[in-house]
Amino acid sequence: MKKIVAITLTTASLMAGSLIQDAKNVGLTPIPSSQTQLLKLIDNPKNPITKAKVKLGEKLYMDPRLSRSGLISCNTCHNLMEGGDDGVGPSTGHMWRHNPHHLNAPTVYNAVFFGSQFWDGRAKDLEAQAQGPTLAHPEMAATKQHIVDVVTSMPEYVKEFKKAYGENVKITFSKITDTIANFERILVTPAPYDAFLNGYKEALTPKQKKGLKTFIQIGCASCHNGVALGGEMNVINVAATYKYMNVGDFKGNKNGMVKVPTLRNITQTAPYFHNGMIWNLKDAIKEMGRIQLGMKVSDKQAESIKDFFGSLTGKKPYLRMPMLPASTSKTPKPNLN
Amino acid sequence: MKKIVAITLTTASLMAGSLIQDAKNVGLTPIPSSQTQLLKLIDNPKNPITKAKVKLGEKLYMDPRLSRSGLISCNTCHNLMEGGDDGVGPSTGHMWRHNPHHLNAPTVYNAVFFGSQFWDGRAKDLEAQAQGPTLAHPEMAATKQHIVDVVTSMPEYVKEFKKAYGENVKITFSKITDTIANFERILVTPAPYDAFLNGYKEALTPKQKKGLKTFIQIGCASCHNGVALGGEMNVINVAATYKYMNVGDFKGNKNGMVKVPTLRNITQTAPYFHNGMIWNLKDAIKEMGRIQLGMKVSDKQAESIKDFFGSLTGKKPYLRMPMLPASTSKTPKPNLN
Repeated sequence: MKKIVAITLTTASLMAGSLIQDAKNVGLTPIPSSQTQLLKLIDNPKNPITKAKVKLGEKLYMDPRLSRSGLISCNTCHNLMEGGDDGVGPSTGHMWRHNPHHLNAPTVYNAVFFGSQFWDGRAKDLEAQAQGPTLAHPEMAATKQHIVDVVTSMPEYVKEFKKAYGENVKITFSKITDTIANFERILVTPAPYDAFLNGYKEALTPKQKKGLKTFIQIGCASCHNGVALGGEMNVINVAATYKYMNVGDFKGNKNGMVKVPTLRNITQTAPYFHNGMIWNLKDAIKEMGRIQLGMKVSDKQAESIKDFFGSLTGKKPYLRMPMLPASTSKTPKPNLN
Repeated sequence: MKKIVAITLTTASLMAGSLIQDAKNVGLTPIPSSQTQLLKLIDNPKNPITKAKVKLGEKLYMDPRLSRSGLISCNTCHNLMEGGDDGVGPSTGHMWRHNPHHLNAPTVYNAVFFGSQFWDGRAKDLEAQAQGPTLAHPEMAATKQHIVDVVTSMPEYVKEFKKAYGENVKITFSKITDTIANFERILVTPAPYDAFLNGYKEALTPKQKKGLKTFIQIGCASCHNGVALGGEMNVINVAATYKYMNVGDFKGNKNGMVKVPTLRNITQTAPYFHNGMIWNLKDAIKEMGRIQLGMKVSDKQAESIKDFFGSLTGKKPYLRMPMLPASTSKTPKPNLN
């Protein structure tokens, strides 16, 4: 009996070896296991990651006072304690207004790996992205001035900005959003899938390996590739016959294209699609087969791909709950209307 | 020169000694420095504090899926990263509705020391309190069934309940809210003030000592006493000529009484009063003098008392940002309406 098991394992390992190659051939790329390589990948030369910026950026990310109402922080829609998103259909912000196009808040985890940000890819990086929701009216609904006034009203924040950028720092709106983005850059979640692609062949279960094979074979990786398994500006043509176009009026970018979302932590980020209309992961897989690949994905195939998705659930960074500085008499008052 | 300083210090120490006694005489009580004594003070024999319960309770406290919308957690209004409150006027919840009586969300920090909970004191302890906002319509707007369904839909939660209460635990609404309350019991924030009352005479600055003296002399401690410097059911008679009664229609308890709020971390919990109508701490101090003590508190006295309040800013417990379990197909869907 022992002998048979041994043989089976060897065969599985050999198969795994070729599976890793197959995965790499279709553009699937792991999060590097080397911290130096990872840092190179997530860093922005124009906004280099430093401990001081990350620590401050986390506070700003968590601070609801940056919003007009004083109630909505970045974390409200991109909740780090959940899947880095909010788990509801349309993004819901100031005065309970929903995103006018019924857009679903995407996860912030691993967003650093995206080639562009927002569903229509209009922002080139996290620094540009962070400027959007802070000012958008159905989201945080603030003004640049409000945000600068809030931050500069608290000596503790001013001190931390000086620590991060030097004594002569000018605390501007873009300096604030750059700092938030700096924090977001570290939000990567290495998963068993990465260990597997990095050569640790037993990191995936047999079922997960089978699922990965199916994923590659039916062509999912033609869009869901790169480090994030998504995130490049391509492919979902919502201008075409998209079944759920009757929800929201999002037209994608000027070419009618919608950004492919990441599949990392996908089991934690329902509901799915840009309009958050599908809750069940198997349904989502089948729907993508139908619309994007023009094929019927069987129940068995969908189940198998879902098994694989389990290996994409990553380890979240260890974060301390930050204590935000106290408001002062100079801090702008929240406006609930 | 040195000699004079030495003499001054000795006099200050002597004065401090009598100030400690004066403070104790008017019912001011420190958070005990002994962990055993503290545990005795914050524990509930019917719901004893355990690590497993606290860890689970923190997750439940942070989990917005307990609310009808999936967007509002206990932490939304009682934000542990701020002063344990939300920093806005009226408590604002489901569908952006405000508390119908314009009530301000009180801090959860040190609420364990209160003799009763809610502004009208209708709940006898944190366990009873936690049942309110989860179901209240302008707050989390859930039903008992929804909350039980959410929690039991996630195997990770079920496992943690078993760990906390034993294999045969029945996960009921009250078991869930008891667990949240168990976590809230540890949210105490020892401050320099406590070190002072516990005998460390130099824990307060000379200005803070002077402020404490003023605080005692003009009679503030007749209501703001005990460990929380407030929290007993007494004294603010809103049925009387309360200047801000034109905001909201809160009548207090059946005797027209409103609970005295804690002064701990008061510099972090603006706006003030049950209706959150005063933002400036000095104004709040003067207003209380006028209404409660029937006296004009001078600008100098108010400033001095405010100095003392600085010594009530405590050390918050070190909390790790919890990772919440992923929703499953059985988890009730959020309802934004």
